[in-house]
Amino acid sequence: MNTAYDITNIALAAEGRRKIEWVSHRMSVLNKLCDRFQGDGVFQGKTVAVSIHLEAKTAYLCLVLKKLGANVWATGSNPFSTKDDVCATLAEEGVNVFAHHGVSAEDHMKEVHSLLLPRPQAVLDDGADICTAMHTRPEYGSRLNGFSEETTTGVLRLRALEQSGTLLFPALTVNNAKSKHLFDNRYGTGQSTWTAVTHLTNMTVGGKKVVILGYGWVGRGVATIAQGMGAHVIITELDPWKALEAHMDGYSVMPIHEAVCCGDIFITATGLERVLRVEHLKEMKSGALIGNAGHSDLETDVPALRSFARSVKEVRDNIFEYQLPNGRSVVLLADGRIVNIAGGSGHPAEILDMSFSLQLASLHYLLRTPKRKPGVYDLPDEIDEMVVREKLVVEGIEIDR
Amino acid sequence: MNTAYDITNIALAAEGRRKIEWVSHRMSVLNKLCDRFQGDGVFQGKTVAVSIHLEAKTAYLCLVLKKLGANVWATGSNPFSTKDDVCATLAEEGVNVFAHHGVSAEDHMKEVHSLLLPRPQAVLDDGADICTAMHTRPEYGSRLNGFSEETTTGVLRLRALEQSGTLLFPALTVNNAKSKHLFDNRYGTGQSTWTAVTHLTNMTVGGKKVVILGYGWVGRGVATIAQGMGAHVIITELDPWKALEAHMDGYSVMPIHEAVCCGDIFITATGLERVLRVEHLKEMKSGALIGNAGHSDLETDVPALRSFARSVKEVRDNIFEYQLPNGRSVVLLADGRIVNIAGGSGHPAEILDMSFSLQLASLHYLLRTPKRKPGVYDLPDEIDEMVVREKLVVEGIEIDR
Amino acid sequence: MNTAYDITNIALAAEGRRKIEWVSHRMSVLNKLCDRFQGDGVFQGKTVAVSIHLEAKTAYLCLVLKKLGANVWATGSNPFSTKDDVCATLAEEGVNVFAHHGVSAEDHMKEVHSLLLPRPQAVLDDGADICTAMHTRPEYGSRLNGFSEETTTGVLRLRALEQSGTLLFPALTVNNAKSKHLFDNRYGTGQSTWTAVTHLTNMTVGGKKVVILGYGWVGRGVATIAQGMGAHVIITELDPWKALEAHMDGYSVMPIHEAVCCGDIFITATGLERVLRVEHLKEMKSGALIGNAGHSDLETDVPALRSFARSVKEVRDNIFEYQLPNGRSVVLLADGRIVNIAGGSGHPAEILDMSFSLQLASLHYLLRTPKRKPGVYDLPDEIDEMVVREKLVVEGIEIDR
Amino acid sequence: MNTAYDITNIALAAEGRRKIEWVSHRMSVLNKLCDRFQGDGVFQGKTVAVSIHLEAKTAYLCLVLKKLGANVWATGSNPFSTKDDVCATLAEEGVNVFAHHGVSAEDHMKEVHSLLLPRPQAVLDDGADICTAMHTRPEYGSRLNGFSEETTTGVLRLRALEQSGTLLFPALTVNNAKSKHLFDNRYGTGQSTWTAVTHLTNMTVGGKKVVILGYGWVGRGVATIAQGMGAHVIITELDPWKALEAHMDGYSVMPIHEAVCCGDIFITATGLERVLRVEHLKEMKSGALIGNAGHSDLETDVPALRSFARSVKEVRDNIFEYQLPNGRSVVLLADGRIVNIAGGSGHPAEILDMSFSLQLASLHYLLRTPKRKPGVYDLPDEIDEMVVREKLVVEGIEIDR
Repeated sequence: MNTAYDITNIALAAEGRRKIEWVSHRMSVLNKLCDRFQGDGVFQGKTVAVSIHLEAKTAYLCLVLKKLGANVWATGSNPFSTKDDVCATLAEEGVNVFAHHGVSAEDHMKEVHSLLLPRPQAVLDDGADICTAMHTRPEYGSRLNGFSEETTTGVLRLRALEQSGTLLFPALTVNNAKSKHLFDNRYGTGQSTWTAVTHLTNMTVGGKKVVILGYGWVGRGVATIAQGMGAHVIITELDPWKALEAHMDGYSVMPIHEAVCCGDIFITATGLERVLRVEHLKEMKSGALIGNAGHSDLETDVPALRSFARSVKEVRDNIFEYQLPNGRSVVLLADGRIVNIAGGSGHPAEILDMSFSLQLASLHYLLRTPKRKPGVYDLPDEIDEMVVREKLVVEGIEIDR
Repeated sequence: MNTAYDITNIALAAEGRRKIEWVSHRMSVLNKLCDRFQGDGVFQGKTVAVSIHLEAKTAYLCLVLKKLGANVWATGSNPFSTKDDVCATLAEEGVNVFAHHGVSAEDHMKEVHSLLLPRPQAVLDDGADICTAMHTRPEYGSRLNGFSEETTTGVLRLRALEQSGTLLFPALTVNNAKSKHLFDNRYGTGQSTWTAVTHLTNMTVGGKKVVILGYGWVGRGVATIAQGMGAHVIITELDPWKALEAHMDGYSVMPIHEAVCCGDIFITATGLERVLRVEHLKEMKSGALIGNAGHSDLETDVPALRSFARSVKEVRDNIFEYQLPNGRSVVLLADGRIVNIAGGSGHPAEILDMSFSLQLASLHYLLRTPKRKPGVYDLPDEIDEMVVREKLVVEGIEIDR
Repeated sequence: MNTAYDITNIALAAEGRRKIEWVSHRMSVLNKLCDRFQGDGVFQGKTVAVSIHLEAKTAYLCLVLKKLGANVWATGSNPFSTKDDVCATLAEEGVNVFAHHGVSAEDHMKEVHSLLLPRPQAVLDDGADICTAMHTRPEYGSRLNGFSEETTTGVLRLRALEQSGTLLFPALTVNNAKSKHLFDNRYGTGQSTWTAVTHLTNMTVGGKKVVILGYGWVGRGVATIAQGMGAHVIITELDPWKALEAHMDGYSVMPIHEAVCCGDIFITATGLERVLRVEHLKEMKSGALIGNAGHSDLETDVPALRSFARSVKEVRDNIFEYQLPNGRSVVLLADGRIVNIAGGSGHPAEILDMSFSLQLASLHYLLRTPKRKPGVYDLPDEIDEMVVREKLVVEGIEIDR
Repeated sequence: MNTAYDITNIALAAEGRRKIEWVSHRMSVLNKLCDRFQGDGVFQGKTVAVSIHLEAKTAYLCLVLKKLGANVWATGSNPFSTKDDVCATLAEEGVNVFAHHGVSAEDHMKEVHSLLLPRPQAVLDDGADICTAMHTRPEYGSRLNGFSEETTTGVLRLRALEQSGTLLFPALTVNNAKSKHLFDNRYGTGQSTWTAVTHLTNMTVGGKKVVILGYGWVGRGVATIAQGMGAHVIITELDPWKALEAHMDGYSVMPIHEAVCCGDIFITATGLERVLRVEHLKEMKSGALIGNAGHSDLETDVPALRSFARSVKEVRDNIFEYQLPNGRSVVLLADGRIVNIAGGSGHPAEILDMSFSLQLASLHYLLRTPKRKPGVYDLPDEIDEMVVREKLVVEGIEIDR
């Protein structure tokens, strides 16, 4: 069977292969599940569509699906996180891939729609992108057993559809599994955000006033590592209990309008949009740095900043300095996009190992069980527990039962 | 109206008054709620029974109830935590108090029953002790609007009654409020456990192998402070997700039978009973220290140890060394009772300030709202939020809304 | 030979014996050195005078000296740290002891002079107390091989005598040994200061603004543990490099006059006198707590505070509240004396194990080598290294060589 | 006056200028000293030679020297750290620069010799490279006021020359200044090592066993941040006091031959050579990672590993995997070169700001004071203090005096 693809440059496959090879040795839980599912035939001949940040670790998941017998169709969930080299490797390895780094939103939409055509039997979705597309052309869902959704944002969209009574397919919320949200946000985003910030800027964190907006799982992970590096951590929060926890954990807590006046580095981690607005940006010290660790590229109101600023310049790779009318400047890492992905290599391999093992097990579960009614479902506990227990084995940890 | 009391020695009242005075200045949220409820008459003339560890902070709660117009009847929830001096002060101040330090279980039961006699209209309960007694003499509950339960254990007992269909009264679970369980366990038990251990033993924690059994809220609080003091922390857990969190937080994780061989200090924090059994104790290094931070006095199986040991001696105030047949010894702090209470001054005042403010608001809510059907109810969110927001005000923290 | 003693109450010996027994099992390096020196006869029949805080651990050192054959004469270095029960045990065990808890400075001076009479051959000194006395009656030094000085303050006094050309005897500065100052201050004072503060007050440290005056070894130890408990740590320093280190370690750094306005708890650790003066105390929040972790009882200018305050009251055991003319109050733990000793049990046993092993080895060295000329000498490196290597063995640590 | 240069590609100047511009805003102490020295004429017309890792921050120092009126001649101290783009910018800005990325040792030697030709009046040296060359052609030192040496290694070489009586020129040891060694190693190398390791590998540090060889300033900085990220830190040390400090700080301590069996990631920070040898490498877990944070590229014995291994492959940018005869592999970051420089962007700008401010002040001091006799001299305290106090001002920190 021929492979269909539309990518930037097939000649990049060797470099992509090297990157995938590296992560493949660090995704041990996924490898163990692959062994476990090897002989059961559940994926054999099934068509699986995958929409997710397309880099080495997700590419490896696609290759595992392919190895288990699936016909895999893949696109990226965000053109700016798509790596052209791993797309080339996927194409060469027989994955049908439609993705280019940096395409326009319109062109990306076409890529998403390409994944409907083979009438997939299971879909790994990110932000409910394919799901949304499928609802515009439900005839392509005729063979679909369900979606397996990766993100909080996607789950919110699915629940909105469910509540309005217009959800046409079942969906599993991998994001709600404990093996994902307890680890991914705190340890994955926490560490990789600081790798990206320090790598991009070559600046010291020790002694700096670091304002972290939001003290959820992401904010806590970011704060713990910042304190470990000697930062003076300031937290802003809406939730009074989380605010008090931050205070008892030894961090300064204050409202945003105070924090903006004293921070050297700002990390947004609220999950909301337009949290840092022009009214805040213009009060910051000149040269204040802003990095985003939340889901939305709009935790800082970048469009409004663009209108407000007199000029913008890429002052260092992937660092954008906005000159404000008041003579000061603010500096956006990765131009406000999620910094560990758009300005780094994304989550560490061992973290995505758990998330993607859940995804593999979730797709396996969708394909091996009878199709259920449209609705939003949590992953069964036994799958969640299977993944965490395999991880403990991989880490060499024995516990009592 | 006369005050009824049965206590050890009324002459201790001056010393008790000094202790209560000290904590009264450190329980600012409770003082603010007292001001807020001052004029509303809800407690006026109402009979309120209180069963809780009777020391300075709980005594102050009783005095606040009295000041708001209630007839207060009090006993301790554990004879070994009862402080005779604050009981004397309570009696002198007009609280009806029936409590003696160190009485037998049988005599303590009589004290509990004394609190049924005035047919209380609201009850602050700890471990469902009064509730259990009331179910043996339900006629004394004729005026009762409900229980306000302080502990996890009490909530479990209440739910068991509810599920068996035999619960006769409504009960509010203060323990489930975020303002309690997010702070009390981690920051209160965490800190005060280490104060008690280091004060009782005069030993170094830095460099020691500290085994913490359980990585719930208490275990985390205990672990964080131990690491801050330079301990080498080892965690045991049954829950695989918590075990993996402990591992990712940098702690060693292992099963109990391995941990017992290498630990210098053991802190039990599982909420279960008989977690450390003779089979474990005899494998420990000679002189290993054991402290209990969990609810039950039986996290270590002390009765079995007593049978097994050749001898026991109080080698330092409140420290008991058991000589084992194998020639080694194990050392129990406070003889296995909860070490921060039985071997220290209990939770810090500022922590109980939040818990007891919830209790005051919970009793206030029970008395000002119509009596509900028997059942176990969570505290309304707005009460939980009122307390945490008052605490933020007290701490001088402003947050965004 | 008869034992001479003048103590408070010989009947307290049993309680003292229990305390000494406890620490004797936790001073493993000292026990190993005792074994090592057992057969060499160096201490046999020699007269050794000891002036040091007289509690269980120092008492055990006296008993080890006695066991090795010395005639031991002992007094306390501070009447407020002297424990009458261990003095009783020492007397019963044949140590000549002249010490009472809480005697006047004048009476204490007589106790010190009692130790000159037997014409000691070696002296363990603290703050150069015996040395100073000996210089007033140098004829009692006729047999003296030298002093072994424990403290920084004592070393300063010895150097002053040396520089003025009036030092009459040789002295070894145990305090300068790495096995002492690298561990004693940071880990010993650090931990035991917080045990004392939290035990005395029953207050929370998490969320509190803790001002630490001085960022030397003591200040760093106190700061590390405070941060581990969730405190918001503020450092004051005169030395610009230490100030910058504190800043880079994530602490707030400010001058004293700013820190006094925002602190909840103050820990003095400067080694200087009158660092906190009335001008500072009156600017503090009402109820601010002050504990002293430095050598001098006068890091806070307590005499000036006594004159300035309208009244003072012991509001809880060993906690003194001073009412100021401006209507506020400040609260002194242990009335400004060093809080881990005067308000607690002093250094942990394992820490003094190292310091006292150095002392034992230092006295052994003085007695086995020819008397040297008057002067201040550092302990030979090989003794320092012997102690640290024995400690590594005791802790079960193997390292490369 | 014409600029002499021999560089890779002058067309790279724009990119180099952008990088220098970025760091110039983050080197505030250097900018303040530049202002301070602006009018004094000390550098005017003087010839200054500079040999140091040639990247943006050092380039900016060269531009500051030029701005102050000096004729600057520059080369890199290590061809692998030389950035061709900043060399191009320097040439364009009138600095005489002789440096190419990646040239052979032989060609690099020629570059170093080029700096002798203008007969410099002051030299900023790294590893005593120019000093060594100058001793082979001392006639070029006819105008030389002295060297200002940056590194520990260079100081050792200078002292060897001094002791052998063959040192011909005076040299100032900037490395010994407190403003350098207290900050550079701990905060600079500590943070940038982890940025490099996590950026190069995209791996998790939390939960990993991280073996740090050496617990000096670098090792402590690396350990603190590793613990902050959730690593299980293991220390190896030769010095028994440092080993015990590591133990008391809560880290595991063991000899190298044990540590190699259990580590996941190894960071060398000993300052020695051939600490990790083939005998160790072959005992490691397959896939173990090794990064170097010490001065020498030979802390791991890479030449011996090359001979021993069956093959080596660059498995990811700047990561080299060696296949061993026993079937396992070890993975060298930056092939054993110092990982934060050869595999990252080097020290953060704010850290080098202090070091290079000391260098500027040191060169200024050499040129404004009479030439001294050959010898190795520490920087005067007042220069060290001037720099740290300017840094405090830059950070907005006020302290008592």
